[in-house]
Amino acid sequence: MQIGIVGLGRMGGNIARRLQRGGHAPVVFDRSSEATEALAAEDMAPAAGLADMVAKLARPRAVWLMLPEGDVTETAVAELGELLDPDDVVIDGGNTFWKHDIRRAATLREKGIHYMDVGTSGGVWGLERGYCLMVGGDTAIFARLEPIFETLAPGYGEVARTSTRKLADDRAARGYIHAGPAGAGHFVKMVHNGIEYGLMQAYAEGFDILYRRGSADLPENERYDFEVADIAEVWRRGSVVSSWLLDLTAEALGGDGRLEGFRGAVPDSGEGRWTIEAAIQEAVPTPVLAASLFARFRSRDEHTFADRLLSAMRFGFGGHIERPK
Amino acid sequence: MQIGIVGLGRMGGNIARRLQRGGHAPVVFDRSSEATEALAAEDMAPAAGLADMVAKLARPRAVWLMLPEGDVTETAVAELGELLDPDDVVIDGGNTFWKHDIRRAATLREKGIHYMDVGTSGGVWGLERGYCLMVGGDTAIFARLEPIFETLAPGYGEVARTSTRKLADDRAARGYIHAGPAGAGHFVKMVHNGIEYGLMQAYAEGFDILYRRGSADLPENERYDFEVADIAEVWRRGSVVSSWLLDLTAEALGGDGRLEGFRGAVPDSGEGRWTIEAAIQEAVPTPVLAASLFARFRSRDEHTFADRLLSAMRFGFGGHIERPK
Amino acid sequence: MQIGIVGLGRMGGNIARRLQRGGHAPVVFDRSSEATEALAAEDMAPAAGLADMVAKLARPRAVWLMLPEGDVTETAVAELGELLDPDDVVIDGGNTFWKHDIRRAATLREKGIHYMDVGTSGGVWGLERGYCLMVGGDTAIFARLEPIFETLAPGYGEVARTSTRKLADDRAARGYIHAGPAGAGHFVKMVHNGIEYGLMQAYAEGFDILYRRGSADLPENERYDFEVADIAEVWRRGSVVSSWLLDLTAEALGGDGRLEGFRGAVPDSGEGRWTIEAAIQEAVPTPVLAASLFARFRSRDEHTFADRLLSAMRFGFGGHIERPK
Amino acid sequence: MQIGIVGLGRMGGNIARRLQRGGHAPVVFDRSSEATEALAAEDMAPAAGLADMVAKLARPRAVWLMLPEGDVTETAVAELGELLDPDDVVIDGGNTFWKHDIRRAATLREKGIHYMDVGTSGGVWGLERGYCLMVGGDTAIFARLEPIFETLAPGYGEVARTSTRKLADDRAARGYIHAGPAGAGHFVKMVHNGIEYGLMQAYAEGFDILYRRGSADLPENERYDFEVADIAEVWRRGSVVSSWLLDLTAEALGGDGRLEGFRGAVPDSGEGRWTIEAAIQEAVPTPVLAASLFARFRSRDEHTFADRLLSAMRFGFGGHIERPK
Repeated sequence: MQIGIVGLGRMGGNIARRLQRGGHAPVVFDRSSEATEALAAEDMAPAAGLADMVAKLARPRAVWLMLPEGDVTETAVAELGELLDPDDVVIDGGNTFWKHDIRRAATLREKGIHYMDVGTSGGVWGLERGYCLMVGGDTAIFARLEPIFETLAPGYGEVARTSTRKLADDRAARGYIHAGPAGAGHFVKMVHNGIEYGLMQAYAEGFDILYRRGSADLPENERYDFEVADIAEVWRRGSVVSSWLLDLTAEALGGDGRLEGFRGAVPDSGEGRWTIEAAIQEAVPTPVLAASLFARFRSRDEHTFADRLLSAMRFGFGGHIERPK
Repeated sequence: MQIGIVGLGRMGGNIARRLQRGGHAPVVFDRSSEATEALAAEDMAPAAGLADMVAKLARPRAVWLMLPEGDVTETAVAELGELLDPDDVVIDGGNTFWKHDIRRAATLREKGIHYMDVGTSGGVWGLERGYCLMVGGDTAIFARLEPIFETLAPGYGEVARTSTRKLADDRAARGYIHAGPAGAGHFVKMVHNGIEYGLMQAYAEGFDILYRRGSADLPENERYDFEVADIAEVWRRGSVVSSWLLDLTAEALGGDGRLEGFRGAVPDSGEGRWTIEAAIQEAVPTPVLAASLFARFRSRDEHTFADRLLSAMRFGFGGHIERPK
Repeated sequence: MQIGIVGLGRMGGNIARRLQRGGHAPVVFDRSSEATEALAAEDMAPAAGLADMVAKLARPRAVWLMLPEGDVTETAVAELGELLDPDDVVIDGGNTFWKHDIRRAATLREKGIHYMDVGTSGGVWGLERGYCLMVGGDTAIFARLEPIFETLAPGYGEVARTSTRKLADDRAARGYIHAGPAGAGHFVKMVHNGIEYGLMQAYAEGFDILYRRGSADLPENERYDFEVADIAEVWRRGSVVSSWLLDLTAEALGGDGRLEGFRGAVPDSGEGRWTIEAAIQEAVPTPVLAASLFARFRSRDEHTFADRLLSAMRFGFGGHIERPK
Repeated sequence: MQIGIVGLGRMGGNIARRLQRGGHAPVVFDRSSEATEALAAEDMAPAAGLADMVAKLARPRAVWLMLPEGDVTETAVAELGELLDPDDVVIDGGNTFWKHDIRRAATLREKGIHYMDVGTSGGVWGLERGYCLMVGGDTAIFARLEPIFETLAPGYGEVARTSTRKLADDRAARGYIHAGPAGAGHFVKMVHNGIEYGLMQAYAEGFDILYRRGSADLPENERYDFEVADIAEVWRRGSVVSSWLLDLTAEALGGDGRLEGFRGAVPDSGEGRWTIEAAIQEAVPTPVLAASLFARFRSRDEHTFADRLLSAMRFGFGGHIERPK
């Protein structure tokens, strides 16, 4: 089916490509004309702007936004609210805060325009592997757009079937779900990313213990010089901790077991933060997810005011003198 | 090759079976004669006890212990130290504390007997999938026993090759490694389990956030009734958080999305605890691994003294009165 | 000076009393006429409602709200916005979310009415000890109301003077500060409570370690039967951990060293939660404050879905069977 | 009474002085003759070494060791074991690991020599304020040495009496306790320090939130430029978070509200670490105490291997490129 794609970066461009390969007809636009032309050269219909895109799409239209979270997406949604007709659909496939989805859906609903939020996982690998899709919005519109979701999703692939599943609906096993009403898709994607932070930090801490086991600070007979690349590799087969993140870890360590090419000042996105806020709202204890977020915050500071205050208190009560800066 | 297997529980029995299938000749013993006879009925050579097993093995002998961690293993190692001859090997495949390996290896070395520690991951799945093996001990003995390790390990399987690996040694990619001298195998397995706790807790917290999102305590327009089984399933394909633990989660939730058959008082083994102690010895911050361990401790208490003391302090400063028990 | 006090619960009633003892003239109102009459019987001027109170106060008026956080306070502020005249002041002494202060101050400013937020610490002890006050709002209005703050605050008391202070302003040493513009007072009070959670949890965990040291699960020669009441008492003198919370701990343990009268399902207020959200907004790592909040959440659940999921995963990979409920 | 003091650093020297002022007769020794002479100049009896000290003390002797934790103390205990006679006492007032106390007490007991462990809090302030003492060892020897403990302890001081205490024994209220048999004193002191870490970190995190609230990264209308020195000061009076550590915080911030003289690489002593190990042995969840320890570990690293691994994984799954070092 025909679909507009706005934002042709790493994610948006590949989404357009995967849809085209799947027999759909993307109309593409990026504010960088270079990006738009690149996809036009791959036989996709280019648009010169949102208005032009709307003009090129047949009704009822569907426009998929794949833009940076925040103001850029907000503005595009507002503009489309002006340009589209009743029964058209705006799809936000970016990393939007789920409460914004609830608000936007309500605003557009007043004009008869539909709004769908699609949590999209897959990164640079999605073009080939497919995208895991978590969709929020009205059931009828989910059904209308299902051919799109089906094409983007990975399908059964080689992943073993879950033996216990009793539900007639096998969409989840093909890589996409209708998670619930507006915001539900991004909520699930948010928690997905919160979990991702926790998983990553668990591996990071474990490998750090292995890495530092050769330290000269330890008693000589309790030191080991581990080949961490081999350890990551061996755990990929037959072990409880095997995962795609471990595969990536093995790739990284295989290239450089000391990871000296990385600085280790780790950014965080909104989703990790919103996950903790959602947990707090529900009074769900999430010590691991919170610790993972804090580890990223801490990775970006050299020394914090908190650290200095600890030093200052120690100085106060014990005359402990810290090494001057 | 010929090998003695002591301890024929879920793990030991299947190890014997996988070795036999691989063309090796296990001599088996369990203090339960029923367990020994079960394997004898599968054409393995039974032994009536450690002395009998030693008598039935040709020199240089190899005896693999697959016994409960602690006194049972300790006693068996000591007895074998009396029964075996120089150049024979004791292999501990259980969940032993790595410092005990260092001590035992030194004690047996005085008699010319070798000691190898083999961290073994695979659980009930190992018979078919193979066991991930992390081996500590002397290089020459590792080489001697390599046919055993090769048979037990999963082999390349269908896991994609790591593109960056430059090492000539592809043992890790076939599922077993020589991690270092005595204790190194169990040290790596210990950290493996520490990471496992962290991964499990990350998923558990995330799914808890999803599960409780339907709570009547939340504002009505911010509630979702998620189908958590579908969410686990959809994340198995194309998502960053896919893993074997997620596969198990999908299996569990597929059968009962509320997990009402489980009580949730979660045991912990020594390895999770020793991981934190090793981290503390190295001064490596491990907030996620520690939080995972504490979550298990907490899951087994109804209310702690700590909780009651919080209530008592609140009562003291604010006259906050807790609901009496 | 004359001041209206709305809300005559434990906190509001004592604030009125302390002001009256300090020579001020409170006009008091509570929606419970019983509460209003109780203070009228102590020679304070009663009001029949907000309108009556406004009528009884001379201009420029000051009305101090000491009401439950949330809708109750919100409604009272809105009503006063209708009743008051330009240059009058609304003071919110409750536990309001600081962003609400910013919003309310802006709304009232349009009518020329002033808004001050006063974080108030002191609990049931404030009548005698005085209240620690953290004030947000315009500097000029802070100055106008300063006689009120001065009376409510503890004054220098017997607390030793801080030797390093160079600031001419000694208000802080007398127990009240002008923290900044609208919301600043409640922001500081919020962090105060966040810290309080952390301090309480630190004591609670330490005493739990002492309390359980007599457990029969430990090796006999590593057990101690500690008299925890004595330990709390001895730390009150000459030790680094002495504090008012420790005094309260000693009081509680002195009465019942096992705290069997407390259930240990510990509530939390908004301030503990908002502190973590403020930290996340600033990207400040706050592992201790967050862990304290999560410990309270956890104290109120018997078993969580997260716990059950851990059990379910363990069952999946190892056939570990949890004891059924 | 007469008592030998070995180790005349900041703590040991002041202990000798406080005992002398209290009418006792210290015989003093430090391996630095300068330190020994300094106290000799204050009219204390100097000794030239342990043997000389033993010769100068009347039987039954008591020798108080105030030495660095670890080998130095261990060696001194062993030497005294050779030099002393039955019924003499070795007192370890340092920061010894409690399991070493248990072992040493057993070893000395074979020779009829007594061993007492005394957890000693007070830092540089102890000379004037007195030392909070937590004593482990035999009851009879505790009684024999009680005049020493009584003198060193702070006494009732100006601290309010705990109203609930029913115990006839008021030693705790005078600042010293007999905590239990060998090791009990250092165990209690260890937990004391574990709590101290937690309290310090709670304040540090809270003040960090306040400190960074002026950051230009925040929305302009949600920033505050707090005077943190004033906040520390105001909380000292009438607030729930008042404590001695807060007094020290106010001292530090009063001198320099930005703490620019401190580097913030915070050491930790064995006691913080052993506290977590004791908690793990008891299966007591201690998220706050552990987080406090980890924060110190982290404060001493610029970037960890764990941080770099997070960056490497992010690079792997999303092509996120971290800023190169």
